[in-house]
Amino acid sequence: MGESLPRKDLFEIPDGVIYLDGNSLGVLPKGAASRATRVIEQEWGQQLIRAWNSAGWMDLPMVVGNQIAALIGAPEGSVATGDTLSIKVYQALDAALKMRPDRRVILSDNGNFPSDLYMAQGLIGTKNDGYKLRTPAPERVVAAITDEVAVVMLTHVDYRSGRMHDMAAITKAAHDAGAVVIWDLAHSAGAVDLDIGGSKAEFAVGCSYKYLNGGPGAPAFIYARPDVVQGIDPALSGWLGHDAPFAMELEYRPAMSTERLRVGTPPILQLAVLQEALSVWEGVDMGDLRAASMRLCDLFIAEVEAHCPALTLASPRDATQRGSQVSFAYEHGYAAMQALIERGVIGDFRAPDIMRFGFTPLYIDEEDVVKAVRVLQDVIDTEAWQDPRYQTRSRVT
Amino acid sequence: MGESLPRKDLFEIPDGVIYLDGNSLGVLPKGAASRATRVIEQEWGQQLIRAWNSAGWMDLPMVVGNQIAALIGAPEGSVATGDTLSIKVYQALDAALKMRPDRRVILSDNGNFPSDLYMAQGLIGTKNDGYKLRTPAPERVVAAITDEVAVVMLTHVDYRSGRMHDMAAITKAAHDAGAVVIWDLAHSAGAVDLDIGGSKAEFAVGCSYKYLNGGPGAPAFIYARPDVVQGIDPALSGWLGHDAPFAMELEYRPAMSTERLRVGTPPILQLAVLQEALSVWEGVDMGDLRAASMRLCDLFIAEVEAHCPALTLASPRDATQRGSQVSFAYEHGYAAMQALIERGVIGDFRAPDIMRFGFTPLYIDEEDVVKAVRVLQDVIDTEAWQDPRYQTRSRVT
Repeated sequence: MGESLPRKDLFEIPDGVIYLDGNSLGVLPKGAASRATRVIEQEWGQQLIRAWNSAGWMDLPMVVGNQIAALIGAPEGSVATGDTLSIKVYQALDAALKMRPDRRVILSDNGNFPSDLYMAQGLIGTKNDGYKLRTPAPERVVAAITDEVAVVMLTHVDYRSGRMHDMAAITKAAHDAGAVVIWDLAHSAGAVDLDIGGSKAEFAVGCSYKYLNGGPGAPAFIYARPDVVQGIDPALSGWLGHDAPFAMELEYRPAMSTERLRVGTPPILQLAVLQEALSVWEGVDMGDLRAASMRLCDLFIAEVEAHCPALTLASPRDATQRGSQVSFAYEHGYAAMQALIERGVIGDFRAPDIMRFGFTPLYIDEEDVVKAVRVLQDVIDTEAWQDPRYQTRSRVT
Repeated sequence: MGESLPRKDLFEIPDGVIYLDGNSLGVLPKGAASRATRVIEQEWGQQLIRAWNSAGWMDLPMVVGNQIAALIGAPEGSVATGDTLSIKVYQALDAALKMRPDRRVILSDNGNFPSDLYMAQGLIGTKNDGYKLRTPAPERVVAAITDEVAVVMLTHVDYRSGRMHDMAAITKAAHDAGAVVIWDLAHSAGAVDLDIGGSKAEFAVGCSYKYLNGGPGAPAFIYARPDVVQGIDPALSGWLGHDAPFAMELEYRPAMSTERLRVGTPPILQLAVLQEALSVWEGVDMGDLRAASMRLCDLFIAEVEAHCPALTLASPRDATQRGSQVSFAYEHGYAAMQALIERGVIGDFRAPDIMRFGFTPLYIDEEDVVKAVRVLQDVIDTEAWQDPRYQTRSRVT
């Protein structure tokens, strides 16, 4: 494990909790609350409207974008933050389709996060011009890249299984067939070592509340390859993507930089907290992080298979084919996860039967992994999941 | 003035400041900082992922929507919050165009806030099917409502002049011609008494960081008339607008309520602060608020015209034709506004020569108005605006 990991002292982790759900909502970085207070009381409260200049609010989407760029292998200035991941998917997809006006197929896979597919369906409805979404199984994507395909839009690391697509190979296959490529890095950014620039993909999008610890509803990000930026014709052409927002012109004229992918007034409070959260990455080597993540995941698999034979691995066994999470299928998975959570080991559940565990080397170590499996074993051996309290599904599962 | 106004004690107003820019960014409500701290430390920090259920995060967009509904004359359940105003404009516009598939004209006006026009231009580009945006002068909108018009999309109160459209009359004229109606309430919500339900308009959108004091980048809102909701075919069909988001189905199936206008994961921190900010409205009678606002604006006009003859009123003189702001044109307006701000009277400037002043009866009273004009008079009489420091334009004007 890299000398700089873990960095538990930079986070607020509740007593008695082993948190294996950083792939859903990252834990609280210690500086976040005081930063929010400062933004609210000193910037908003005292500087008021002047803070757009004096506190640097207007530039925050690109400043924070640069922090994320450094973690995903993207050049400075190529990442804009704001909105939600679904909105950023729509932006990238719309731009990609306009780059291939004579093609009508969006290729994704049936393991993609549903919202990405929903946004594609919505865009197809709005364009109403014969576009189609194809969703083969993940392992059949490459074979499905034909010359009808305008854009290949995939989530790099599968939200359920943690299975990781081969970014370089798929991007190359898509480009060879003349398609544009969009990578959704929701489960990759801050979880694996990435070289989005080197991949040559035209677009990448992602969220910042998982491995980047930006907090609930933290802003999304969008990367565009620098040489395609000036060809992008934005659908979501909000004023802050305009070349001169405060000139109040009646005609949209996109900014010449990645700022053209900005839309409306940025969520300053969330951006400031995210900026603070990203400071925990200073000095982290992403290769070290990836090595630590693989070790933690491998250890978890070995321990679960040794102590909990009722569970079936639902992630690739080969660490190089996985992100930073491990899933197990278990028939009583929903109730077992509730029992586990009540005992301080927090993972989550995804329908139909997936118990999902995320491993974030910034604040999880090998001792946590071993302890977590002891609790899991106890839940299963004692059939603790049978408790009626664990059977009722919450609104958010 | 209504007995409950002003309510200065509910806000943090910096010493020595008279804040006449609540039409751009409202002041800080006293409870906001402690609410943000609670959300960050107790909900995010301690409850972590569980807070989506235990702290009510998942329902917050509709809970806060109901608070806004009460201020704009909309029924419970008819307002969803989230995203930015530009995104909400796009959603409403796309839905409206689909409701009139045989028409091709979007009618707005050339006084509309540019981002609304830009979003329309972006949608037209993406649909690529012969749609046109027409922007006559505001006073010529009614005459321009022909049977080619699919949707009339207007900002109720003009961001520069404060001129207010006749919502009932224009909505009726549009409906008589078979068009759908969208009102942008950015400068109306919390500023004037509204009856959006009674107007029969199909859609309304707005932001919450102006008169609603939600803080920088606070979420936007969208209203849909209850009887049209189930006919809306969302373009921005994100997972949280799905009927069963956590079923993780591959096909989008919209929620049967206004929740279908939700998109992605909501910005919890900003929503919680907004919820707190909206609590200052408890017990405020919107008729009282409107009467107070008109009195403050009338007084400001009378005082400026008496003491600053170089300024020309750029707002309607008749209070019933105005929102809660007053603008004056002044050749040296930019520099004069900087001088004024440095002296503690904060308004703002909009190109080319508009000095803009907002009056928020929640925290501005008649004494403030009189004092502000004394300072303005001094800036002009002494030509304080000539100071070279006031000539350089900031990024955000």
